Amino acid sequence: MDIQIIGYIAAICTSLSFLPQALKVIKTKDTEALSLSMYSIFTFGVIMWLVYALLIWDMPMIFANTVTLTLALIIFLLKVKHTLQSASSQGN
Amino acid sequence: MDIQIIGYIAAICTSLSFLPQALKVIKTKDTEALSLSMYSIFTFGVIMWLVYALLIWDMPMIFANTVTLTLALIIFLLKVKHTLQSASSQGN
Repeated sequence: MDIQIIGYIAAICTSLSFLPQALKVIKTKDTEALSLSMYSIFTFGVIMWLVYALLIWDMPMIFANTVTLTLALIIFLLKVKHTLQSASSQGN
Repeated sequence: MDIQIIGYIAAICTSLSFLPQALKVIKTKDTEALSLSMYSIFTFGVIMWLVYALLIWDMPMIFANTVTLTLALIIFLLKVKHTLQSASSQGN
């Protein structure tokens, strides 16, 4: 088996894995157990991967990281929204 | 700035981002909002990344994916445990 195929399977899995999490968060509106630190650091990391992929102009990496960034951003922004709403309701 | 440094920053961020999530899950024992599908696909994907890294013998990739796999496995196994406990208590 071509070694590169393993790399492509890996990239597809780690990128698309965030799809069921994003769908779950959108559906349930529950982000309580999700770590804000994780999604802050992860989203920043994926932006860095995308910058790196653009600089070395690697199309599979650009594509995979664009997909991951989109999904991670959805989860991150909903977590930020719920954290702010929770802080606001505790302040009242 | 050396382009490779951006790649290293990206790898450190996306690997270590799972540390606060693992610590949160260990501390709160709450995995309700976490997607079992996400951690199943993601953990499998990281194993594939590790296999790929071992085959091309890339030390930074081997190191980064070993760290990510350890953290992702902790979260995945605790999610499986809680899912089974929840299914078991609903069955009673």
